[in-house]
Amino acid sequence: MEYKDALDMHLKNRGKLEVISKVRVETKEDLSMAYTPGVADVCRLVAEHPEKADDYTIRGRTVAVVSDGSAVLGLGNIGPFGAMPVMEGKSLLFKEFAGVDSFPICLATQDPAEIIKVVKYLVPTFGGINLEDISAPRCFEIEDALQDIGIPVMHDDQHGTAVVVMAAMINSAKVAGKSMGEMTVAVSGAGAAGVAVSKILLGVNVDDPSYKPVKNLIVCDSKGIISRNRKDMHPYKYELAKITNKENKDGSLADAMSGADAFIGLSAPGIVSEEMVRGMAPNSIVFAMANPVPEIMPDKAKEAGAKVVGTGRSDFPNQINNVLGFPGIFRGTFDAKAKKITPRMKVAAAKAIAACVENPTADRVIPPALDKSVAERVAEAVKQAAIAEGVAQVKE
Amino acid sequence: MEYKDALDMHLKNRGKLEVISKVRVETKEDLSMAYTPGVADVCRLVAEHPEKADDYTIRGRTVAVVSDGSAVLGLGNIGPFGAMPVMEGKSLLFKEFAGVDSFPICLATQDPAEIIKVVKYLVPTFGGINLEDISAPRCFEIEDALQDIGIPVMHDDQHGTAVVVMAAMINSAKVAGKSMGEMTVAVSGAGAAGVAVSKILLGVNVDDPSYKPVKNLIVCDSKGIISRNRKDMHPYKYELAKITNKENKDGSLADAMSGADAFIGLSAPGIVSEEMVRGMAPNSIVFAMANPVPEIMPDKAKEAGAKVVGTGRSDFPNQINNVLGFPGIFRGTFDAKAKKITPRMKVAAAKAIAACVENPTADRVIPPALDKSVAERVAEAVKQAAIAEGVAQVKE
Repeated sequence: MEYKDALDMHLKNRGKLEVISKVRVETKEDLSMAYTPGVADVCRLVAEHPEKADDYTIRGRTVAVVSDGSAVLGLGNIGPFGAMPVMEGKSLLFKEFAGVDSFPICLATQDPAEIIKVVKYLVPTFGGINLEDISAPRCFEIEDALQDIGIPVMHDDQHGTAVVVMAAMINSAKVAGKSMGEMTVAVSGAGAAGVAVSKILLGVNVDDPSYKPVKNLIVCDSKGIISRNRKDMHPYKYELAKITNKENKDGSLADAMSGADAFIGLSAPGIVSEEMVRGMAPNSIVFAMANPVPEIMPDKAKEAGAKVVGTGRSDFPNQINNVLGFPGIFRGTFDAKAKKITPRMKVAAAKAIAACVENPTADRVIPPALDKSVAERVAEAVKQAAIAEGVAQVKE
Repeated sequence: MEYKDALDMHLKNRGKLEVISKVRVETKEDLSMAYTPGVADVCRLVAEHPEKADDYTIRGRTVAVVSDGSAVLGLGNIGPFGAMPVMEGKSLLFKEFAGVDSFPICLATQDPAEIIKVVKYLVPTFGGINLEDISAPRCFEIEDALQDIGIPVMHDDQHGTAVVVMAAMINSAKVAGKSMGEMTVAVSGAGAAGVAVSKILLGVNVDDPSYKPVKNLIVCDSKGIISRNRKDMHPYKYELAKITNKENKDGSLADAMSGADAFIGLSAPGIVSEEMVRGMAPNSIVFAMANPVPEIMPDKAKEAGAKVVGTGRSDFPNQINNVLGFPGIFRGTFDAKAKKITPRMKVAAAKAIAACVENPTADRVIPPALDKSVAERVAEAVKQAAIAEGVAQVKE
């Protein structure tokens, strides 16, 4: 990777986004329509009927990518200035992959209460909020507080990741000859992504009778298995302990992986050994998604018996990349005019991504990150799920 | 004006702005440059050197148009949803007239302290703030509190108006054979625009030895002349009383206009009679800018002896329109990398706009609103003024 090129590209363009006008302003009539006095009628209409804002302003098709820079990529808490290049990138992916307009909002505060307040103040401007790179456990508090503000709010590090991991798991199970409902899963990492991945695989709040959660799932943090016996944990991990780890086992990550059908790594480079993979059930599934260095390198995992291996990297097969999820999820939510993104809609997104791979093989359990046809299929599935669940404001 | 067309146009486009990517994402390399992993180096650089944010992110070329919807056009306090069409319009004018990227931010709070806080939180995202359609006197408090946040903040209803009025006055004085420094001026309206127009004509804080303020200026609100004798006024009007109305006169608007060389109306329709214009000095200048119905119609003002008449309307000569000001002002401020927009920079903008009219006549004291060459000349003048005053971070 020529990083120098990335620096040059950003400098040359002075960032990556551009805000353009959809209408020309060449004549007095143009000016009167786009601005005064013609715009006054539009203002009056929207002021009297705020529900029409989505049709007459950019709101109904525009997502804010909101971050405080507290957990940017693998760089940690680099603050809101350093976060901008990523948030701009996210915004451009929204547009390039799903035609969703998006604007980055990097905030000079890391106080959850303040972030919550600012997002609420932004509701007249944006029809959706993609929270991004906000550290755990603050991200849970912030997202929870924003679920009923009348516009969809999704923390992509949680749910975008959960959706693409689930998509990859659906196809991996087929390739490995396993049934999702019979599967035991070991998750390494109890941050934003680990929690959301665990919840979606366990079907938490998924209002869909056909959904089969995995049989058992054990989460580990850096101190080992999260169990109800642990005394050293943040409250949100106790919540996690309540819904995972059926036998309430204690122990190390190796203990969690022992006999497991699948491993999902959302944690740290190189912490999984070949020995640990060998201890898994036959035809195991290994998603080693620490970036840029995975929990275990794919070749090692294969040698140790893994049937399917996925990473976050583009230079190995099965790149499990959020870009397959968020653009289509928001596109579908906007198309449905839904005011929230429910677990069922996320599951529908995961199934749609999985369905984009017609004949899954060990080297292809997820579509390529750059396949822009995926977003459209995700959008349609998300929209239909919203309609089926009764959260859409459109009928078909 | 076919207002129906404006409604249709907004509905068809679902608002007027679009956020696009300046770079394509077709290959793995594209994705790595715009997003992970390549972007990480850009993040690191900007995090370590926030002063480089203006070069490597959109910040250095992007203005937020911030409103709380408390004083939208002539519609009053219609709130942030109703304000969006105007703020989108403003953003598109920034782009169309000066190539400045801009995004509307309509906030669901009208508490000045909260608005101030949110704007401060937005500093990592935006390199400039155009405050818009915020009611007086709240707008003064908000703008004052934001002068030292490290990025230029300008309330356009105040200063944009002041700049274009001054531009028109410079040329009107020439046409009427008057010297600015000898002129007495009556201003009707002590809101945002009235205060700023008064201050610029009086040269408040204009750090430019060559600048000649007008000789005397009297402001009226709906109760009459603002004098130091009045007991019924908001504190900001007392501040205004201290710097205006040299003889501390009391009385009505007619009294203020009596003998005045120029009248500037930023108030209410039809409040100026022909009689009142007749009472002005010979070759008087009348700017009747109440919208859409002026303080006095141009033909009546002319009949009553006015030499030059301007309005805010496009269907009469001399349309005094802010679009001649704000795009170039921010463009020049960005080009200078200045951290604030000083009175001297505003005066430079006014002079540059005036200079765009080569041979001013009674029917042409200001360039046409749609003349997009004006912004470029304004930008250059603003930049040079910033350099001369020592607030620029570039040298030429």
